[in-house]
Formats: sequence, C-alpha cells, structure tokens
Amino acid sequence: MPAAAGIPVAGLAVRDAASPLAPWAFQRRTVGPRDVQIAIHHCGVCHSDLHTARGEWGAMRYPLVPGHEIVGRVVAVGRDVTRHAIGDAVGVGCIVDSCRDCDACRRGLENYCERGSTGTYAGIEQQTGLPTQGGYSTGIVVDEAFVVKVPASLDLAAAAPLLCAGVTTWSPLRHWEAGPGTRVGVVGLGGLGHMAIRLAAALGAEVTAFTTSPAKADDARRLGAQSVVVADDAPAWRSRRNSLDLILDTVSGPHDVDRLLRTLRLDGAMVMLGLSPDPMPFPGTFTLASRRRTLAGSMIGGIPETQAMLDFCGTHGLGAEIERITAHDVNIAWQRMVRGDVRYRFVIDCETIGMG
Amino acid sequence: MPAAAGIPVAGLAVRDAASPLAPWAFQRRTVGPRDVQIAIHHCGVCHSDLHTARGEWGAMRYPLVPGHEIVGRVVAVGRDVTRHAIGDAVGVGCIVDSCRDCDACRRGLENYCERGSTGTYAGIEQQTGLPTQGGYSTGIVVDEAFVVKVPASLDLAAAAPLLCAGVTTWSPLRHWEAGPGTRVGVVGLGGLGHMAIRLAAALGAEVTAFTTSPAKADDARRLGAQSVVVADDAPAWRSRRNSLDLILDTVSGPHDVDRLLRTLRLDGAMVMLGLSPDPMPFPGTFTLASRRRTLAGSMIGGIPETQAMLDFCGTHGLGAEIERITAHDVNIAWQRMVRGDVRYRFVIDCETIGMG
Repeated sequence: MPAAAGIPVAGLAVRDAASPLAPWAFQRRTVGPRDVQIAIHHCGVCHSDLHTARGEWGAMRYPLVPGHEIVGRVVAVGRDVTRHAIGDAVGVGCIVDSCRDCDACRRGLENYCERGSTGTYAGIEQQTGLPTQGGYSTGIVVDEAFVVKVPASLDLAAAAPLLCAGVTTWSPLRHWEAGPGTRVGVVGLGGLGHMAIRLAAALGAEVTAFTTSPAKADDARRLGAQSVVVADDAPAWRSRRNSLDLILDTVSGPHDVDRLLRTLRLDGAMVMLGLSPDPMPFPGTFTLASRRRTLAGSMIGGIPETQAMLDFCGTHGLGAEIERITAHDVNIAWQRMVRGDVRYRFVIDCETIGMG
Repeated sequence: MPAAAGIPVAGLAVRDAASPLAPWAFQRRTVGPRDVQIAIHHCGVCHSDLHTARGEWGAMRYPLVPGHEIVGRVVAVGRDVTRHAIGDAVGVGCIVDSCRDCDACRRGLENYCERGSTGTYAGIEQQTGLPTQGGYSTGIVVDEAFVVKVPASLDLAAAAPLLCAGVTTWSPLRHWEAGPGTRVGVVGLGGLGHMAIRLAAALGAEVTAFTTSPAKADDARRLGAQSVVVADDAPAWRSRRNSLDLILDTVSGPHDVDRLLRTLRLDGAMVMLGLSPDPMPFPGTFTLASRRRTLAGSMIGGIPETQAMLDFCGTHGLGAEIERITAHDVNIAWQRMVRGDVRYRFVIDCETIGMG
C-alpha cells in the first residue's frame, strides 16, 4: 500500500536509539471498514516508551513514535464500525490488535494472545505490514475492537495513564481478587504504584505502601494507603511479616524480593509488574514453601478488563495524578522520569505536536 | 520429667554434624491420654534427614535420630484416644504437633501452622520440652491427631515414603487442581519425583517428566509419564513451550528455573519442592509476566490431606518404589542417596535396629 494513500499526522519520533524525540510528519493507514480514526488529545509518558525507544528491550526499527496511553475523540469510523461513533471520547492502550482466535483472545485476554498481540508502537500493523506508531502524535487509526470508551465523568488528560498504568495494576488486583477484607501491598510509588494504591483502595482493600522515599509517605496515604513502610524501617518490616494477601511490585530494577515475600501470609501472591532487565537474587525457596507463597508476573490487561477498569474509574472519579506538558517539554520529561522526578505521570497535550 | 519415666526404644542417631549414624538407646515419653504408642516397622530415608543431621539447615542438638516416613502398628493408646486402636496400621509423617488453633491449623494445614509446627525430629516436644526424635527407631509416641491410618491394601514398607514424599507431591497436585485435562510436568526423578509422576498420573493428568538422566526415561514412562524431556534435548524443550498447567520441581540444587517456566501456559504454576540452600538465577520477570505464570513453593501437607493421600493410594494400589535395608546398611544408604544411586527410596526395616 503506497504511503501516499494514508492520513497525514504529526508525531514525535526518535530516529535511532540515542536521539531525542523530534517532530516527524508521517501517515496513518486509511480508515478500513472496522477502523476508528481518533484525534489524539492526550498521551501519557510511560517508562516503557523510553526503554523501547532506546532499544533496551530489543533492536528497533526507526523512526519510532512511542506512546500507549492514548485518549482522544473519534473523528471518523469505517462502514462496519458499531461500537464507537464520531465525537466519542475513547482510549487506546498498549495493544492495537491480536489473533482474536486463540484461547486467550477468546477469553478477552488479548494481552496474552498466543500468537502475540500487536503493540501500539514498535509492532507490525497487520493491515499494512508497516511498523505501528504510537500516541505521541496528533491522530491514530485503530480497529474498533481495540478502542475503549472513556466515561464522560473523567478528565481526559488524567484518564490517559489509565490505559497502561491503570489496567496494568487493575488486572492483577482483579485476578488475585483484591477487595474488602484483603490486605494489599504496593511496592514503588511511581506511575504504576500510585494507580495501584488508588485502585486497590477503591476496591475496598487495606493498602500498605512500600517505598524507599520517606518524602512520598504522605502522598501514599493521600492516595489511599492505610500504612506506609519505608525501606530502612526494620521494625515496620517485621510487623508486616505474614500479613498481606497480595503484593503488586512495580519496581523495575533489582531489589530484595525475598524480604517482600516474607510479608505475605499463607497462599499470598506477589506480582511483579516491573520488568527488570538486570539479574536479581532468587527468592529463598524456603520463603516460598513455608507459607505456600507465589511469585507471579502480569502484563497489562485485556480489552474487556480495560473497559471495566475505565468504567470503575468513571464511577469512582479516579484518574492519575499528572503533570501536563507540551510537545516541547517531552525530552526534558523523559530525563525527569528517569530520575523519578514526576508525581506521578507526564501527559502530553498532543494538540501541541507539530505546531512548530 | 525424669527420663527414667519413659518408654525405652532403640534408635539410630548422629552424635554431631559429622558422625555416621550409630545405635542409641533412648526413651520415648510415657503414653498420655491422647497419645498413641507405635511399634515402628519401617521408616523411609529422606534427603532432609541428612541435611538436618549435618546441620545444613541450621545448628542442631545432638544426639539426633532422623526419620519422618514412619509406618508401624499401634501397641498402646491413651485413655482418651478415639481415632486409633491397638493393632492398627498407622503412619507418622514430618510433623507431630502444632498449635491447633491458628487459621492454618483450623483449615487442616498444620504444616503451615502460624506458630510453627513441631517437627517429627529436631523439634521440641511440647509435652516434655525435650527434642523430638524421629523414626529411625523401634518405637514412637505421638498425639493421635498426628497419626494417620494406613489402608490395609498397602504394603507397609512401600507405604512409608508416602508420609513425606507422597504428601509433599500430593498436596500441590491437589491445591493446583491436577486432574483429567491438565498437563503436569515433574522435574527430577528421585524420591519425590517418582511419587509425583505416580500420583499425577493416577489423578488423571497427562504427565511430562523432565530429567537430566536419559537412563531414567524408561522408568519415568513406567511410573506413568506420557512423555519425557531429557535436559539437553533442545527440540523437546521447544515443543513443550507454553504447554503445561503445573510443574512440580523436585530438584534441590541450583538449576535453570526460567527454562522450565517457559513450558507453562497462561496462568500455569511451577511449584518448588526442593529447598535449595544455594543461590539460583532469578527467573526472567518477562517469563513470568508474558503468560501470567506463577512460581510457588509448597511444604509437605496437612494431616487431613495426608490421610486423603493414603486413602487414594490404598484405592489405586500406589506405593513408593523402594529398596529395603537393615539398620546396618543405613550409612551406606545415605552415601548412595547423596549420589542419587537409589530407585527411588530406601526404607529401613526398623525391627533390625538395636539387634547388635
């Protein structure tokens, strides 16, 4: 398909693994029968954007437009589209396609598609064979099955991070049945962690936040944590032993997993959400065995649970805590994100992209 | 309580962390109201016996009589005993007491007692404050609540290893719901592994055995495995990716956990039963996350599930594959066990203990 047939959009792209983000004019595919064309209003800035753009999770094709926390409004629909209409507030998360036929897809777990789902960026678009490009741009074309509705009660900018940080924490909270009467630990207070606290608290769980940063303790409480354990507070760690039902661990670098596991009670589960590229010490097998504890991983969420999470957030008035930025600020935002200097998510006003 | 008040028995004890097993005459507590006195016919030889005797899992008090795969017959009962009668074939496993009051105990998971269960050896007897001594002996006195019935259909010697190796594999098979339509991997073909294959197959699961020893492949099939993966068979590993629901990993030394995890399908669980004292590489967090896999531990089993396992084995005619030895052979048996030279469990004829 000749590129000339597409829809022109402006984006922010990296040209190689070392370059900063820079404006790039490119084209989206034309709107197919089941496609939705979205004018992007906001896109959250996820640490994955940087890891991927820098080639830290594998070699990439460039130019590459990151961004998978996309919120905007529908501006065109294909002739067979039934779920969305022009003017709707909608979102797109980490995946834009999957096989739709495997057991996982049939269960609404497209994120675990056995044939591999298509990433919103750095994937291969099944319709064109071209690389997918993400949400640091003014528009996108996505199959309606991978577009979710954003409830009217939500602020669009604060809703953007729900599409990744929200569902990535929501999915394990639901799968491991967090709710009234359960005690949930949240490790790390960043983009994922702050959403995990909010969602777990709204689900009725008693939340304990674990952080290395005493300065974030008040924030953790304000977000919904009933108690906070700071990394070097040995008595606080001891008092939490054998107490938690579920831990969501959002830390991506090497850290002491065994100490966290010991805070789980019988049959408790700790879910790793940060993908550490560096080796970590293996947890003690006795730590696992002595309370039949489990260590698990979880990766984003499926489309039905993404919609359920957005609906829940709409009902409870939950969004991310964000710092809004323009296209001009995005390279500085990446630098600040690496330093952990953001409370708790940058969100790009995408209308400012391509304005020169 | 003066030792002179007890019941004299003969045992095999180690006198310090480096000594061989040697005959030792000692005394059991007198039979209390809820106690059962058992003449021990057979005791299985578990690798834990050696680890514990050698002080590898912590400093010990000596002399120490190992053994927690105990089968024998009741020779006396206390006045309040209701569950067992003189002449009954009974068994005692890894624990002889617990608090009986915590959530775990109330759920029949005395092995996870929140206050710590009492080990059959190297524990502290609540009735006397003295160290518990294990089944490498001619008799033992145990509270009836920690004594299980051995079905008449079972060979007593072959039943002995069920009390540890049997229930240690049975408990996770049941907890993670192995049965018809599930695919179970068993890693390592020793005392635990051979029972795991037998029990999983008898429960109706499709069993894949993983072994480093091609010489054991035929045994694995005979025990009930439908297929065998030998460690260096790369195509076999590839063909098993994303295929198993549950893995029981009985290997206690460091090994490649990540490669095993990749054979699990979505939501599959791998349960570590071997307690490795040495560090292992942490599994890739992406390996866990990409299929929402879990890595768990499990430790022996509770009393009700021990009885359920024995009843199941009675119905299905299942016992361990054993090599019977006398008291004179036990130090050689320990040496052979360390080399993996046993198919698949040594069982001591305890009547030969103390015969000079």
